[in-house]
Amino acid sequence: MIKISVIGFGNVGQHLASAFEENDRIELVQVFSRSGKVADVAFSHKLIDNLDDLATADVYVISVSDKSVSEVSQKLPFSGRLVVHTAGSMGMDVLDAKNRKGVFYPLQTFSKSKSVDFSSVPLCLEAENGSDLELLEKIAKSISKSVYRIDSTQRKALHISAVFASNFTNHMYAIGNDICEEHRIPFEILQPLILETANKILALPPRQAQTGPAIRHDQNTIDAHLALLSAANQKNIYQLLTHSIQNEREKL
Amino acid sequence: MIKISVIGFGNVGQHLASAFEENDRIELVQVFSRSGKVADVAFSHKLIDNLDDLATADVYVISVSDKSVSEVSQKLPFSGRLVVHTAGSMGMDVLDAKNRKGVFYPLQTFSKSKSVDFSSVPLCLEAENGSDLELLEKIAKSISKSVYRIDSTQRKALHISAVFASNFTNHMYAIGNDICEEHRIPFEILQPLILETANKILALPPRQAQTGPAIRHDQNTIDAHLALLSAANQKNIYQLLTHSIQNEREKL
Repeated sequence: MIKISVIGFGNVGQHLASAFEENDRIELVQVFSRSGKVADVAFSHKLIDNLDDLATADVYVISVSDKSVSEVSQKLPFSGRLVVHTAGSMGMDVLDAKNRKGVFYPLQTFSKSKSVDFSSVPLCLEAENGSDLELLEKIAKSISKSVYRIDSTQRKALHISAVFASNFTNHMYAIGNDICEEHRIPFEILQPLILETANKILALPPRQAQTGPAIRHDQNTIDAHLALLSAANQKNIYQLLTHSIQNEREKL
Repeated sequence: MIKISVIGFGNVGQHLASAFEENDRIELVQVFSRSGKVADVAFSHKLIDNLDDLATADVYVISVSDKSVSEVSQKLPFSGRLVVHTAGSMGMDVLDAKNRKGVFYPLQTFSKSKSVDFSSVPLCLEAENGSDLELLEKIAKSISKSVYRIDSTQRKALHISAVFASNFTNHMYAIGNDICEEHRIPFEILQPLILETANKILALPPRQAQTGPAIRHDQNTIDAHLALLSAANQKNIYQLLTHSIQNEREKL
């Protein structure tokens, strides 16, 4: 049994703790929550609200807000143990040097109100030394079928890539929703299109899957759309993305 | 049996013709292809390359490029029959007045190289008169479980909405792909995130599902990302979309 404690109980921390708790090869030792409260009663007997109460474990997973990772790692009341963080945008170096460093970054979008199948969540791993990396891989492979070694430089690029592919994509959905609401069209009409657009990337590179007025250089439709858009942000985004799609085609 | 002929054999025309051909309650009478050629041998015996050869049918579905819809409708060698087009961005009025007008707009993204399950494709219908609209509904419901009455004004808005939710979304995937390639990261790492982001809209309105540095007003991460992005279009898009996400939160 690999002993793991989870420090921080936000979206990522809760999902990770659940995945560890459900796994036969892992013993979830403790969970730290600053507030001393957890919504899920399953964790209440493992809950601590003081870092000084942390018991011995093989790995400590810090899953707090990006800006607190460094501070929390400094406050840990021990040294020489394996401490990892889960932050996509932070280098491994933000962790205090008194412990062995690593990163255990689950590349997925987590919401409290929606459960996630962890077995399909890619886990991006990094560690200072080889044996720690092997331990992290053993843990990762026990909860997910998708495990990668990704160094700090790559992870920062991957995080930016995820902002485009997920956060900005969701904002495209939100604007689509706004336009539908404005015209009393049920947004559900767009759901199959949104799912198919996402599923296409399993079969085709995104550039080959590109459709629509921009890639067709259909200026009549583009002009008609711009004339109908009233919100300034929608119009600006429409123009910039159309331009970006067209330029990139010429680059190919 | 409802008799239908499909005029135009691009992506949409081919997918529609296949859906009609496979349906027991519909007789696909003819398909018109300007080139006189079809890739799928199943349609070769129904193929015509001259509009004057069109036989009698209950509905003629014009599925040609947006700019050719009007011209093709004028060239039809008959009058008083039901003629519909499939173009999201075109009003019903572009059809020649000599025939009864309607619209049969499948809101989905079609690629020649990827088959589509038509039963989940939303069909947006419009017609000049009630009995034609009922006939179109009967046809639509026989091939899809998702059928809507959408007038020309709504359809134009819906088409813009689809550009954001599908075309622009795919461009976000393409940029994510570029950034991965630049850092030798396999793009497949992002696939589960992309699918989960799309699936979330089935459970949550997009605004509630928004995550990432922009909505958290995490300026440190935003600045770090902008500093790492080298391509001008990526940097401009990152700034504009971050701004748009943040403004809209304040509007709520």
